Parts: sequence; structure tokens; C-alpha cells
Amino acid sequence: MSVTTPRGFRSAGIAVGLKSTGKPDLALVVNDGPARASAAVFTGNRAQANPILWSRKVIAGGTARAVVLNSGGANCFTGDFGYETTRLTAEAVAAALGDARAEEILVCSTGLIGTGDQAFRDRIVGGVPTLAAVLAEDDATAPAAILTTDSVEKTAVREGGDEGARWTIGGMAKGAGMLAPGLATMLVVITTDALLDDGALDRALRRATRVSFDRLDSDGCMSTNDQVSLLASGASGVAPDEEEFAAALAALCDDLASQLQADAEGASHDIDIEVRGAATEEDAAEVGRSVARNNLFKAAIFGNDPNWGRVLAAIGTTEAAFDPYRVDVSFNGVRLCHAGAPDRPVEECDLTPRRTHVEIELFAGDCSATIRTNDLTHDYVHENSAYSS
Amino acid sequence: MSVTTPRGFRSAGIAVGLKSTGKPDLALVVNDGPARASAAVFTGNRAQANPILWSRKVIAGGTARAVVLNSGGANCFTGDFGYETTRLTAEAVAAALGDARAEEILVCSTGLIGTGDQAFRDRIVGGVPTLAAVLAEDDATAPAAILTTDSVEKTAVREGGDEGARWTIGGMAKGAGMLAPGLATMLVVITTDALLDDGALDRALRRATRVSFDRLDSDGCMSTNDQVSLLASGASGVAPDEEEFAAALAALCDDLASQLQADAEGASHDIDIEVRGAATEEDAAEVGRSVARNNLFKAAIFGNDPNWGRVLAAIGTTEAAFDPYRVDVSFNGVRLCHAGAPDRPVEECDLTPRRTHVEIELFAGDCSATIRTNDLTHDYVHENSAYSS
Repeated sequence: MSVTTPRGFRSAGIAVGLKSTGKPDLALVVNDGPARASAAVFTGNRAQANPILWSRKVIAGGTARAVVLNSGGANCFTGDFGYETTRLTAEAVAAALGDARAEEILVCSTGLIGTGDQAFRDRIVGGVPTLAAVLAEDDATAPAAILTTDSVEKTAVREGGDEGARWTIGGMAKGAGMLAPGLATMLVVITTDALLDDGALDRALRRATRVSFDRLDSDGCMSTNDQVSLLASGASGVAPDEEEFAAALAALCDDLASQLQADAEGASHDIDIEVRGAATEEDAAEVGRSVARNNLFKAAIFGNDPNWGRVLAAIGTTEAAFDPYRVDVSFNGVRLCHAGAPDRPVEECDLTPRRTHVEIELFAGDCSATIRTNDLTHDYVHENSAYSS
Repeated sequence: MSVTTPRGFRSAGIAVGLKSTGKPDLALVVNDGPARASAAVFTGNRAQANPILWSRKVIAGGTARAVVLNSGGANCFTGDFGYETTRLTAEAVAAALGDARAEEILVCSTGLIGTGDQAFRDRIVGGVPTLAAVLAEDDATAPAAILTTDSVEKTAVREGGDEGARWTIGGMAKGAGMLAPGLATMLVVITTDALLDDGALDRALRRATRVSFDRLDSDGCMSTNDQVSLLASGASGVAPDEEEFAAALAALCDDLASQLQADAEGASHDIDIEVRGAATEEDAAEVGRSVARNNLFKAAIFGNDPNWGRVLAAIGTTEAAFDPYRVDVSFNGVRLCHAGAPDRPVEECDLTPRRTHVEIELFAGDCSATIRTNDLTHDYVHENSAYSS
């Protein structure tokens, strides 16, 4: 259970032949109300897939009542034909639901860029009626249908409110590669039975994604297809405290981001880069991201080498406020660099555990941020050199 | 012959025990005049090694008359002790030359960050008299003494002027990893017997490095120790046309940059990313650099996969002027993407040759730039996960 844990939702996932493996590749999440609201955030990439172009209009135009998602093809850079495929997909969903318009249907696609031919269209549009026919309130098949190179399903649930007035949030996510800032390549659908309007959902979603998905930077590569959708049904009848709801949503997004990090393609270390003592939160995030994107640092972690020199070299490329000769760098709790010189012997530091904690103290202020990344491994290179074959 | 091809220079390279392999690791290039001039450019990294801090003062304070370079240790983040080592090195060279001051000696170091203890200092300072004793006008030993993980020496020579009034430029370079923008991790020494002053050298050097070393971005990682030094002896007695000299210097830097690209750690493809039709040259360089730093693109090239979708996804992360649905992308002369949709079949494109040409047409103006990079390979990961061991 995940997106159907909150009341007022049905979902389903089936195989329509987009994946050569025959695994599930088409999913649908429907908001049955009674009081529908929605919000979504999209990739920051200027090169945007057809489903992103479509879904932006849906959100701008009103409230979404369903999300249809396919894996097995990104429908990005597939020309006008690809945009028409997205529109026809939304129309098919609207028709199957009976009481909806195409302009109320969010569409998400993931897979190889450039994939979206006639067969792709026929399989999706032709599969929608079958998909709609198996929608269920206790569905557990949707999360698998959105996976690409992911090895496990990612789901999370949170709840809030007082006894007798509970509300719930549920989410499912996919993402294992092209994981970076403008959301980390991912598709996420979050549902809640809390009673909230579009504006409140939008505020809470932007707060939550800013410090969770936006700080996951597995491989520095921003996707063309990222979308995080949030649907509220109001089925609990409970209008939550906005702060409490935002906190629960942030916790759920953080949980899903952590699951995405743990399943990143080819990774052998999950690295949390905690930057403290920054002049601003932006500085802290910039420093963390610069280290997270440094291939030499990432390769060193793969080799269990706590190479603090590469951390400092990466920090030096930022615009953040800091004095290179006052920075402290610790790996897994062992301070290896202090005040611009070697500190504890590197032999004291054990990087064999998968979870890796790099702590950077800038001594430039009181702000902090943590960027999540992964190491650069043989398997990452292998998986991504053979992806389209 | 390289730095001693121009008249008025002596050089030498010896082993003083900084490298565990016993290979040469200390080099010296001396300008014997008669009319000395100098210029230098340094890493853009804010985290700068002690020799960079020192050499900046040398250039700011007047004209350099020699460059001493060591491999086997970066002397970066080695505290005040490390800076003192650099000063003592310059003093030892000045004393050995007899008629020089320490403040006229440029110092360069390359190797592991954090390396620079008492033994390191003793070997360098103690080795300088031996090094100075073997300085020769026909030396060929200096280029090998500055190498780290490089597999071959990099040298280049150009000449100019008219018959009977010839001048010459010679250069040597090292660099195989941490190769990126603020010069691409490298040490370069260039000599010329042309008669030019400090200002003319500085202008020509900045023009040349901007379109050569600054556009080499093998792995996106900027070094703490980059330095390109240019010394003029005036020994030819010929004052060249400044434009002609600048062009010859640019050609020599381009030659050396190409040699650095070809010897990049673990690389199996040398990729030239040519961006055309950009609104500005800065846009072109930004687009090329964004593609050059995209790990998914780099891994695809390793797998001989002309993955144009990853090129477009990388372009989309830039601020450059362009319409994502008007861009053309060609690999090795085959246009695979046209106007935001697939064009020629990818099977027509052969990526098995080491040299790879990616051409991006933005249709946004008349400016262009080429960024040189390499693919992301198993060997890159291997070399850089084991570097400090």
C-alpha cells in the first residue's frame, strides 16, 4: 500500500508491452474525492519531455484528478507526434473514467529519450481501458509499473492529526539514474485524504521537495521528465494544520529520496554530505553539490579512500563564503583535515560501510544543508554505457 | 627538445626520491636572457596550493627568471610548513643560480594534496644544487620530471618571424587527471627567445590559454595547483609582430592541450564537442562544458552509444539561448537529432574510433566554441579510486 493508503484513491499497474521484459509499465492513480485538490513540481531542465509540457498546462489550468504514468519510454524529443501521444493518453484516461476531461489528467513518462513511436502510442492508448478496469482501492500493483532500472519499489506512508481526526499521506517513487537537482530524475505520486486546497498543497509540496528531492544529486545529471504530483481527496474530512501537514509531507519526501539514493545505479556507497557553518543555506547546498559532483571524490569513495584533498579542491570551485585555510573535513566522524592541514591519520577512517557521512565545517556562519549522493563505480559506468542497448 | 629549443634557456630534470618509483621528480628551467620577461596564469580554484600562493607574488612583483617544478606531492593544504617549503625551494634555486633572488623564482608542485612533510622538503631543497649543476642548453630531461600519472611526455615547438630573423617557442606540459576549466590540471612551462616585455607576454598568454587549456575539460575537476608559465629570453634579438606571436603561442597551447586530452587517465575516447550557432561564444562554451561534464553522456560514449538524448538533456541545464526543439545533434558527421526529434538511425554512426566529434547546432546565432573532453570508463574509476594508495 502506498498511494491507496489514504482514503479516496484507486490505482492500478499493468503490462502493455513497452518494456521488452514484459514487466508492468503502465500505472494509473485516480482521485475519487470528495474534495479534490492537486499540485505538482516539474524538472528544472529546459529540455522537457512531452508529458511535462502537457502536465504543466493541467496544473496551470485547474485541479488534476488522476495521474497516468508509463515506464519503457520517455516520450521526450519525439516531435509533435509525441505531444499528440500524450494528449491521446490523457483523453483515453478521461474517457475510461467517464466523468473527467483530458485536461484534468496528469501524464508522466520515463525511459529512453527519443522513444515514442506509433507502437509506443498504440500500446499505451490501447492499454488504458484495461488499466482503468482493474483500478482498486487496495491496489499494490502501481509502484512496480513505474520502475525503470530501479531494483526495488519505493513507497512511503505518513499520518497525522488527532485521535478520531486522522489524515494520511502515501507516496510511490521511481528513480535510479539521471538523479540530480531539478528534482533528481524521478517520478513521484503522493496522495492524501487530508482536506486542503490547491494553494496549500502547492506551498507544502515546494517546501518539501526543496530540501529532499532537490538535494538528492546522485550523478549530477538532470532529467527531462521529472515530475512530483500531489493529489488530495479530502476523504478523511479533516482539514489539517498546514504546518503539521507540511512537516509530514517533508518527512515522506525525505523517506522516498533516501530510498532513491539507496537504489542508485551501480552505487556501492550512499554518501550524505553535510555542510555546516555556512553563511547561507544556499552556500551550504552549493558546497555540498560541488563535492557531490566531483568525479574524483566519488571514485575515491568507491575505493574506500577518504580523500579529503579532493573535497577541498571541490569546495574551492564554488562561490560560497569560506576561507580555504579554515575548513574542517571529517569522514565518518574522523576529522582528517583541520585548518587547511592534515589532522587525524586517514587509517583511522573506515569507509567500508555503505552509508558514508562527510562533514564539512566552513566556519563562515550558522547555516547548513545536506546533499545526498553516491559513489562513482565500475557498475555505474557499465550500466550507463549499455543503457540503450 | 622543448623548453630549451628557444635560445637563452637551460633546463634539467632529476630524481630526488619524491616518487616511490624512483623516476625523475624535480625539474628546473632557467632564463639566461639577455632580455628577460615573464607571464603566468594560475588555477581558478579558490583552494590554492602553496606554490600557487608563492608564484602569484613572484609574477605580481616583477619578472621571473626561472621555474622549479616537482612532481610526487602537491604541497597543497600542508599548512604554514608547506608555504615555508616553497619559499626555501625558491631560495635554494636562487642561491644555486648565484645572481638571482628567491622572489624571481616560480615554483610549481603536482601530486597528492596534503603531501608536503619534512622529508618532502629535505628532498627538494637538498636536491636543488645537484639539479642546478646539470642544467644544460640541450637538455631533454625536464619534461619527464614533471609527470604524474601521465603515460607520455608532452612537448611542442613553434617558430615564427622571417628568414634571418627567426624566433622560437617551446613548451612542456603535464596533466592526466583533475583536468578541468580553471586551466585543466596541469603544469606547463613555455619558453621563447622572442624579444617581448611582460605586458605583451601576459596578453598573448591569456588569449592563448582561454581557447586551449581553459576549454579542456576531461573530468570536470579543477585542480589546486595549475600553472602555465611563459618566459622570454630575447636571445633571438627579434621583436616579433604581437599578433603573429600570439597566434603561434595559441597554436602551441592548442597542441599541448590536445596531447593532455589524448593522455587523460583511463580514457578510451577523445571527444571534441563543437557547439555552433550560439548567440555568444560564452553560450557555446557553456553548452559544450555542460555536455562534457555529463556522466551519462560520457559513459554512453565509452559504450560506443551515440546517445543524443543525453546531449539534449545536458544542454537543457544551461542558461544559453536556444530552443530545445530546434537543436541539431550530430555524432561523427551523422545527424541523429533534428528539430527536437530523431533523425538518422543511430546504427549509421560508428563510435569505435578513439577520436569522437559531437556537433551541436543551436540555431541561435553565429558564435561557436569547442570543448575537449574524454569518456567515462572503468579505467578512469579504477585509476582514481586507487590513486592515493
